[in-house]
Amino acid sequence: MRAAPTALLTDLYQLTMAQAYFELDMHDTAVFELFARKLPPTRRFLVAGGLEQALACIEQLSFPDADLEFLARLGGFSRGFLDHLRGVRFTGAVHAMPEGTPLFADEPLLRVTAPILEAQLLESRLLNICHFQTVIASKAARCVIAARGRRLVDFGLRRAHEADAALFAARAAYLAGFDATATVEAGRCFGIPLSGTLAHSFIEAHDSEEQAFSNFLRCSPVPTTLLIDTYDTQRAVDRVIALSAQLAARGEAAHLQAVRIDSGDLAREARAARSKLDAAGFPHIQIVASGGLDEWGVQALAAAGVPIDAFGIGTALDASTDAPALDMAYKLEAYAGTPRRKRSSGKATWPGAKQVYRERDAADRPLRDRIVLAQESAPGEALLVPVMERGERVGPRPELAAAREYCRCEVARLPGALRALEEGPAQYPVIVSASLQALARQLDLAH
Amino acid sequence: MRAAPTALLTDLYQLTMAQAYFELDMHDTAVFELFARKLPPTRRFLVAGGLEQALACIEQLSFPDADLEFLARLGGFSRGFLDHLRGVRFTGAVHAMPEGTPLFADEPLLRVTAPILEAQLLESRLLNICHFQTVIASKAARCVIAARGRRLVDFGLRRAHEADAALFAARAAYLAGFDATATVEAGRCFGIPLSGTLAHSFIEAHDSEEQAFSNFLRCSPVPTTLLIDTYDTQRAVDRVIALSAQLAARGEAAHLQAVRIDSGDLAREARAARSKLDAAGFPHIQIVASGGLDEWGVQALAAAGVPIDAFGIGTALDASTDAPALDMAYKLEAYAGTPRRKRSSGKATWPGAKQVYRERDAADRPLRDRIVLAQESAPGEALLVPVMERGERVGPRPELAAAREYCRCEVARLPGALRALEEGPAQYPVIVSASLQALARQLDLAH
Repeated sequence: MRAAPTALLTDLYQLTMAQAYFELDMHDTAVFELFARKLPPTRRFLVAGGLEQALACIEQLSFPDADLEFLARLGGFSRGFLDHLRGVRFTGAVHAMPEGTPLFADEPLLRVTAPILEAQLLESRLLNICHFQTVIASKAARCVIAARGRRLVDFGLRRAHEADAALFAARAAYLAGFDATATVEAGRCFGIPLSGTLAHSFIEAHDSEEQAFSNFLRCSPVPTTLLIDTYDTQRAVDRVIALSAQLAARGEAAHLQAVRIDSGDLAREARAARSKLDAAGFPHIQIVASGGLDEWGVQALAAAGVPIDAFGIGTALDASTDAPALDMAYKLEAYAGTPRRKRSSGKATWPGAKQVYRERDAADRPLRDRIVLAQESAPGEALLVPVMERGERVGPRPELAAAREYCRCEVARLPGALRALEEGPAQYPVIVSASLQALARQLDLAH
Repeated sequence: MRAAPTALLTDLYQLTMAQAYFELDMHDTAVFELFARKLPPTRRFLVAGGLEQALACIEQLSFPDADLEFLARLGGFSRGFLDHLRGVRFTGAVHAMPEGTPLFADEPLLRVTAPILEAQLLESRLLNICHFQTVIASKAARCVIAARGRRLVDFGLRRAHEADAALFAARAAYLAGFDATATVEAGRCFGIPLSGTLAHSFIEAHDSEEQAFSNFLRCSPVPTTLLIDTYDTQRAVDRVIALSAQLAARGEAAHLQAVRIDSGDLAREARAARSKLDAAGFPHIQIVASGGLDEWGVQALAAAGVPIDAFGIGTALDASTDAPALDMAYKLEAYAGTPRRKRSSGKATWPGAKQVYRERDAADRPLRDRIVLAQESAPGEALLVPVMERGERVGPRPELAAAREYCRCEVARLPGALRALEEGPAQYPVIVSASLQALARQLDLAH
């Protein structure tokens, strides 16, 4: 397991502002909300991710001596402020959408209500955590839609953005419906099923592909997948068939479970391999495809009925290559009981503590959302639920597998147009309540 | 400081293959090389990053009991193999390009020569480390070129891909010439200068912007930067001028060092602010710009002579949004003294242990590179140097600041066309030696 990053994993200005709040005796309650200002063109919805790690980060807020000594050495921080920091813990409340909830632009997925110094200190890292897992869960949900029930495995460790990204990409992908990950540590940390095959290097380290196949079958955990595209994919299929005949003769046919194709024209190679394997009497040998796949590639293969049983998705998933970042922010919405609003050009926010209500039809399918002031009520269910009060966790703590099942159901219930991969005008109706609009106008007049 | 990720931060198949190598008594020496197969359209060169962390990862290769117990619980691994893993350490050699070296497609930045089991176990994590810092250093180098000498600060923690990405993005950006980071922990871990201002929330938590400005000036470390775009940028400049007059009257003019503009038309707002500040007699107050900036935005502002003294670059840098991943691989090039070659469609590799020679003109400017077999010689300097022998580090270990200076000089010496930001045909000549081409042909005939 990993050591948690310290409270110094923050932007310098959070500490500078905290010192000013301290020196100015500004200890009133602030409300901050975390939300995406808009969605990338290729996202018709987002999937909330990272809440579990966000809450752990909030619980762990503290400044051990080593941190305070570093800040003292930096200069610019007063002794009084550093002494105060030593005692800082989170004492406030948190409301959040459960992980796996589909959401839309301007809808807060997390609301922090706490003395302003505490809430401010959390900004950078809460964004860092929730942004990343939301990016990945949203990308993964598209892959799940595209795969139409075929298995999906996270192969992305090597091109994830360093260690944590690999771990939390595996988690967020599983949350959004992936079946497994190749990243062993993610299996250990989060209980995600592990899946693995072999690499070209193993084949190449042998003088012949036949020898490599039979050696790997002999020494690897069963059932085994063989990689068949190192030299010539269809010649490799012939070798697999010969080997399978030997296995079958020994009653070990089940030891060879699948072949993996990692390059070339995946549709053509998979179809040809399927035909050969079926004709040879090995219909149980599955086909795994990988190699630069994203949701578009998966959709094309799945929609065309190409006989592929599982997809390995690497770079496109772990780096969310088409949308590696969201325009996500954590903004002050109220302080000392007064709603606040940023009016910066192109970045204006809706003021006040807010709630999101989701109205559904008789079949439980979402019809529309309403963003309202927290004290308002509206039809449907409130998506932000209390998860922390007075610095302590409250409410159920869903297991990752349960959150995954919740996500699967919720995404499946979205209107069909939202589940399309294409860029386009399909918009889910998100209504901003009249009271909220009136409040924003009123604050604009005040400045 | 952070705990290092364990050796289980790897793909499952590395362990499966390692078991097969062990069971098959395949203990001969393998040569693996790490390289980018091709460059993204908006990269005319890459900058090698991550070597320091890669070497630390190699030195730390080991499987403590907790790891072995987890693998035993997974099933599929033999007792004999797990006992062997307990004693595994890296005993081989590593050659690498120094961090900060500009490089091109197909050029190895790292070569591992070791018993195949050891070298194989390192694949996933070495890629994970070197890929990410190379992605960021390559992006950052473009920002440095675009900024034409203006200061650049990393603001990207919040949208970096989780904790490690924020830390190592700060490091890689500094390596490539950034001046500072806002990420406090990166300052502590790597000695990078820290820089910070204040956020809109501080302004909004006050009932008036005037009060917020004077409060922040009173309580924050000096010299201070004020954020001026929360409500109306030019009205905020008037407030800054009034405050500066008060400061000047007290002999504290230097306390207010800069203003930051984070939204709107940065060129227009900066020019208007500059005029007002100069006219009011405060030419020493600098202008910092941020808000969705990337190298293109910086280039447009710098080339137009907009009076901006420093740029904060966040999302575009830390997530390398236009090219969040490189087609980087770690491939077996030789085993047991025999060169190896993958021939997979579109992914064929150059076989054998290789070296890269860089030839320069009289002014030390790179003219062309040659990729040759390691035992060949060629004009110019060899870019891959020994950094580890028999599992121990050798050679100089450059400080980050020294690597940064090396990078600055090397990038500045690149042909002008390579330093353009645009997509385009500008190619640096990389010659593959005749011997290497002959070896590839010879291996192709053998299969």
